[in-house]
Amino acid sequence: MRSSIVAFLTDFGTEDGYAGAMKGRLLSLAPHVNVIDISHEIEPYNIQQAAFCLNNSYPHFPEKTIFVVVVDPGVGTPRKGIVLETSKHVFIGPDNGVFSFVCRQEGYRAYEILMDSLDDGVSSTFHGRDVFSRLAAWLANGRSLRQNVQPIEQVNSFLNPMQQISKKEFLLEVFHVDHFGNLILNLHKDDCLKLESIEDPGIRYKELQLTGVHKTFGEVAEGEYLLTWDSSNFLQIAKNKGNAAMGLQASVGDSVTLFG
Amino acid sequence: MRSSIVAFLTDFGTEDGYAGAMKGRLLSLAPHVNVIDISHEIEPYNIQQAAFCLNNSYPHFPEKTIFVVVVDPGVGTPRKGIVLETSKHVFIGPDNGVFSFVCRQEGYRAYEILMDSLDDGVSSTFHGRDVFSRLAAWLANGRSLRQNVQPIEQVNSFLNPMQQISKKEFLLEVFHVDHFGNLILNLHKDDCLKLESIEDPGIRYKELQLTGVHKTFGEVAEGEYLLTWDSSNFLQIAKNKGNAAMGLQASVGDSVTLFG
Amino acid sequence: MRSSIVAFLTDFGTEDGYAGAMKGRLLSLAPHVNVIDISHEIEPYNIQQAAFCLNNSYPHFPEKTIFVVVVDPGVGTPRKGIVLETSKHVFIGPDNGVFSFVCRQEGYRAYEILMDSLDDGVSSTFHGRDVFSRLAAWLANGRSLRQNVQPIEQVNSFLNPMQQISKKEFLLEVFHVDHFGNLILNLHKDDCLKLESIEDPGIRYKELQLTGVHKTFGEVAEGEYLLTWDSSNFLQIAKNKGNAAMGLQASVGDSVTLFG
Repeated sequence: MRSSIVAFLTDFGTEDGYAGAMKGRLLSLAPHVNVIDISHEIEPYNIQQAAFCLNNSYPHFPEKTIFVVVVDPGVGTPRKGIVLETSKHVFIGPDNGVFSFVCRQEGYRAYEILMDSLDDGVSSTFHGRDVFSRLAAWLANGRSLRQNVQPIEQVNSFLNPMQQISKKEFLLEVFHVDHFGNLILNLHKDDCLKLESIEDPGIRYKELQLTGVHKTFGEVAEGEYLLTWDSSNFLQIAKNKGNAAMGLQASVGDSVTLFG
Repeated sequence: MRSSIVAFLTDFGTEDGYAGAMKGRLLSLAPHVNVIDISHEIEPYNIQQAAFCLNNSYPHFPEKTIFVVVVDPGVGTPRKGIVLETSKHVFIGPDNGVFSFVCRQEGYRAYEILMDSLDDGVSSTFHGRDVFSRLAAWLANGRSLRQNVQPIEQVNSFLNPMQQISKKEFLLEVFHVDHFGNLILNLHKDDCLKLESIEDPGIRYKELQLTGVHKTFGEVAEGEYLLTWDSSNFLQIAKNKGNAAMGLQASVGDSVTLFG
Repeated sequence: MRSSIVAFLTDFGTEDGYAGAMKGRLLSLAPHVNVIDISHEIEPYNIQQAAFCLNNSYPHFPEKTIFVVVVDPGVGTPRKGIVLETSKHVFIGPDNGVFSFVCRQEGYRAYEILMDSLDDGVSSTFHGRDVFSRLAAWLANGRSLRQNVQPIEQVNSFLNPMQQISKKEFLLEVFHVDHFGNLILNLHKDDCLKLESIEDPGIRYKELQLTGVHKTFGEVAEGEYLLTWDSSNFLQIAKNKGNAAMGLQASVGDSVTLFG
């Protein structure tokens, strides 16, 4: 396999030059690659946000795209670096849950990166540049990683099954607050359809109770809250032409009750 | 026409993966395209800021560049999606004023996007990915949009003619506050030259009175305010080595009196 | 020489369209170029931060990469614009210290840009677009700049030699605070090894005293401070899984005592 697109997703910001270093290293080894920035603005160390961001992006990229994801609070500890191969894409990064959604949704083969096989020039604080970008470049060049990885069975994930709290009630959580203040909940449309006890989803959250999932924000008045399926088909609490997170003083991790 | 550059301008931020999704979708359909980020950091829903940002950028891009502009508070309402063709460029986005400057400055043909012609996979909340990026990809591939658009006459604009308040005075407004705190006013140099009653432009704003347009910031002492033509030839109030907006506690929309 | 990569580093932000204008101008003149963003998020006018960011990035880029660095508080004053050629790279920007690290670390030839040779269309407020991007495009096209530059001897630098305060003590400073709150000090590993009076580096800073340079953050407990060599081999004060700058209320310019 030879790839032409490498997409970066990090919590580095850009102002220190760390993201630049990764791109430079990649282009030095694989000059033909089209470098795409997904984001460098993940909140520092926020693995969950990175996983969510990746989930919104990766399904839309061409076959053979290589994703380098570096939100890596454990760099320098014995946490594994991994390579995941799905039928369409390749993912490279630390084994800390950033690939939780990929693993839930795709068939994959997982490999641990053998750090000792990277003979020279691996800093202990910057695997993004010295390990992950290098492997991405080698893959993009069609080089086999056989000497550098070994198969593993398990990949870390932070996704837990939803908790049922009564016959027709489940406990959800605010999973992510996006740029516009929408509250994304940990319920995918496909999973919701499988819940026999939920016919028409509604939620209770703080003082708010909402029933029925709308198709567009414009179906409610300006300033009103509503439920919709977000663009990756997770249930979200939104506010038409407003910021739901501010209006509701919401935080990631808040509990939400699903009923139906 | 076949294009090789698609430039994105959105208010998505990058940390949710929505901008990444647009790029991925584009590259999946038109892998040859050179993807350029103008900005994803427009203030959420700030159409005026997006229009201004586009105006500072687009004239400098090569012929056939396709601009995808998605600052779209009305997504999901019946607001139109449009395609604008000028002699040099193509613009795709919502019909909400983001193309105000383009329409003022360029001859153009305008088309409404026929949403019903996009048979499958159009989410109601993410036209950036499902409508605008797709059309950009098709155009970049040289595909005709004849089945997907129809000509229209009118495009929305927020630009209003300047108000005259006395023989030698006009009412301007602070149009934009840029990253450095410069106050951009809604007076283009070309338009100013046509004002017979204004010989040498001066402004009054709060306690501040400035006369004469300087060529460079360095013509006044550090910390002094001055008038210059900005890099797109709008009149601006600046502060040499300082932040005029902070110093003057200025906000977009503030009134400024032009005299001369 | 013909180049295929131009990397941008500015303090423009992206939301005004100034960064977009530079990219557009470059691509209009040199359509074959691969445009890479290092950062547009340097703090406005922060030359030291830009120099640091460049230093972390440039060594990793391919030969012939052209770097356009525009953090330029003196635009419009008689400050020089310069072109630096090293054995591997080319650097273009204002002569205000942004290339301090490059000049310390690389052999180079320096040229002043002759503004008068750029006959037309040079705004006095936006040299990034009208001067530096144009020259980058010409260089990328393999055009000689002989008509547009003249050799100079001296380039501005803000790097000063370290001050010795006793037989075994030196005065360092906090040089940069990175995105993760690490405090980068102005001591490079290579320079430290040459200090005969320092065997095992330690630092005193406010209430904090640290001895011994660790290889990884994980060698100390969560929340503990430590010394490491950063990814460009400068000494840094870090906090395992925390933000050292916040914890220590540190600012750029703070004094730190090195002992050993």
